[in-house]
Amino acid sequence: MSAKIITLFNSSPLKLVLGGELENIDIAYQTYGNLNADKSNAILICHALTGDAEPYINDNINKGWWQSFIGSGLALDTDKYFFICTNVLGGCKGTTGPSSINPKTNKPYGSEFPAILVQDIIKVQKALLDYLGIDHLKAVIGGSFGGMQATQWAVDYPDQVDNIINLCSSLSLSAEAIGFNHVMRQAIINDPNFCCGDYYDKSPPSKGLAIARMLGMLTYRTDIQLTKTFGRAVKAKSHYWGDYFQVESYLSYQGEKFLTRFDANSYLHLLRALDLYDPAINYTNIQTALSRIKARYTLIAITNDQLFKINEVRNSRDLLQENGVNLTYYEFPSDYGHDAFLVDYTFFEDKIKSALV
Amino acid sequence: MSAKIITLFNSSPLKLVLGGELENIDIAYQTYGNLNADKSNAILICHALTGDAEPYINDNINKGWWQSFIGSGLALDTDKYFFICTNVLGGCKGTTGPSSINPKTNKPYGSEFPAILVQDIIKVQKALLDYLGIDHLKAVIGGSFGGMQATQWAVDYPDQVDNIINLCSSLSLSAEAIGFNHVMRQAIINDPNFCCGDYYDKSPPSKGLAIARMLGMLTYRTDIQLTKTFGRAVKAKSHYWGDYFQVESYLSYQGEKFLTRFDANSYLHLLRALDLYDPAINYTNIQTALSRIKARYTLIAITNDQLFKINEVRNSRDLLQENGVNLTYYEFPSDYGHDAFLVDYTFFEDKIKSALV
Repeated sequence: MSAKIITLFNSSPLKLVLGGELENIDIAYQTYGNLNADKSNAILICHALTGDAEPYINDNINKGWWQSFIGSGLALDTDKYFFICTNVLGGCKGTTGPSSINPKTNKPYGSEFPAILVQDIIKVQKALLDYLGIDHLKAVIGGSFGGMQATQWAVDYPDQVDNIINLCSSLSLSAEAIGFNHVMRQAIINDPNFCCGDYYDKSPPSKGLAIARMLGMLTYRTDIQLTKTFGRAVKAKSHYWGDYFQVESYLSYQGEKFLTRFDANSYLHLLRALDLYDPAINYTNIQTALSRIKARYTLIAITNDQLFKINEVRNSRDLLQENGVNLTYYEFPSDYGHDAFLVDYTFFEDKIKSALV
Repeated sequence: MSAKIITLFNSSPLKLVLGGELENIDIAYQTYGNLNADKSNAILICHALTGDAEPYINDNINKGWWQSFIGSGLALDTDKYFFICTNVLGGCKGTTGPSSINPKTNKPYGSEFPAILVQDIIKVQKALLDYLGIDHLKAVIGGSFGGMQATQWAVDYPDQVDNIINLCSSLSLSAEAIGFNHVMRQAIINDPNFCCGDYYDKSPPSKGLAIARMLGMLTYRTDIQLTKTFGRAVKAKSHYWGDYFQVESYLSYQGEKFLTRFDANSYLHLLRALDLYDPAINYTNIQTALSRIKARYTLIAITNDQLFKINEVRNSRDLLQENGVNLTYYEFPSDYGHDAFLVDYTFFEDKIKSALV
């Protein structure tokens, strides 16, 4: 990680929507490109559930989660724009989250970490931009959970953002997706090492977190992609209850790999923020909230997304249009399903560029 | 349970395809209607993963899993046919499975229970029919895992069955569905009470099994049905990590309810039999196996089935046709998704009746 870290909310704590407050919040962030003289070319990148502040890594070894999207002449053009990306509040990649030290106890927050919402996350992003002296954004862009953050920027700060680009996401999570999140949470909570979230001085709930990740992976891709990649191929060496099929081995590997980069409490908190996302929080109703949007809004959906199902995204499209939002909508199929926004650069390139014209 | 139980394989054990053998196998079964004089009207009903030997229960209180399909003049017409249904080998509803007493140790099999395949399951069904003096079947019908059993009947006993009716199933499980089964298995195995499967004298791995069931339920229905039924409604009383949304409460209830009727080891074994199902086992290849089929074969698919995805079922359709099977194929959408074969009687009625003409 070469992300910078700044501590804000030192003198006045952040009051959280669901109650409680946080002070001395560390914020990890990274920037790309150059801010122009009139500060009119800043774009905020919002990451998805388990992302971080570094969508592009410039070390010739590692790659960021949007490595292929960011650079000279690319969809996110570093010749034209100044990009800022921050790790979300509640995360575990530099910004304050459940694994951070609680200044009041000098121990990790653990079970004491308060519930956070997308609305809280973007307040922290706003504080960072204020600190950087940026009071207007050319755009806010994000996929999945990042798309929800982008939407809330347009609602909460209508005069401060020109364009919203929301990839593979909707205005709220479906009952089915909440159900998948529920199963993932219970797998973590049922891990014998979970200890109500206070596991930082012991072994973490690794197996539960790995199970959650495996399930997540199944919702991020499609049956078509898994059939093409693995089909019913079996492993040369396997055992009956373990990784007998290649697809099991792949999922187990993804589960294990996730343990090296993510904290179970952060996963629980961010999944819940995803479930609870509702643009109408703090407003009379969804109409009042969406009617505040002044930004041009580009919504790009994947017809075979298994997490944000196309029916839900189309409902969001209709809701945005009914409330006077200047909307450009695209939908297309991709074998990658939900993950298309991370891997299918070719398709997204011209649509993102058009959204920034 | 009012199912009858007969013990077979007393003198010569059942040799299992993957090795090992079982003797003194209890077989739970139920019959409906009357066998005619020339024994030409017998139909075998094969249940799905967690079903039992009683698709219809005649006690005015309980209902069987195909209660609405079976009766005078219905799709499964008790005026015309004699129906036999047995609990599968490896189950926990009367037929020998991991929770049964191993006659060699006088303790439950637990971790000692051998791996079983669909091919073993139908050998037990065949032994029951031999015991009942039925050497020819008008039809074998089943949905999901039951459809796989029906297919194998046509392959292994081509001269003894006239019609196969396979609902919401395919000739093998997709990589994605194997992936869901893998996640479910790991949730059970990771339960602190699992004890390698030897938990019968202790507390069972209830939470792991409930988590597995919750995930199963999500694959059995559709996003559309869950949105219609629950949407984003929240519970009046809830706690943050638990059942905050109605859909979570529904899933938790389903998970809990399942514990009263199912054994974790049976679930593991039957999930694996589902993964491993391949009509070609014991034959040179899939072509050789399918070319043996003489029965008329009716395949009915749900276009938005989330477990047996339509692409997989269409591949099965093509494979059956390419290998000379006399196939009738239907597909239709249903908000119920995979579970349509259990609940959508109206749609299935005429198609099942046509298949039996």
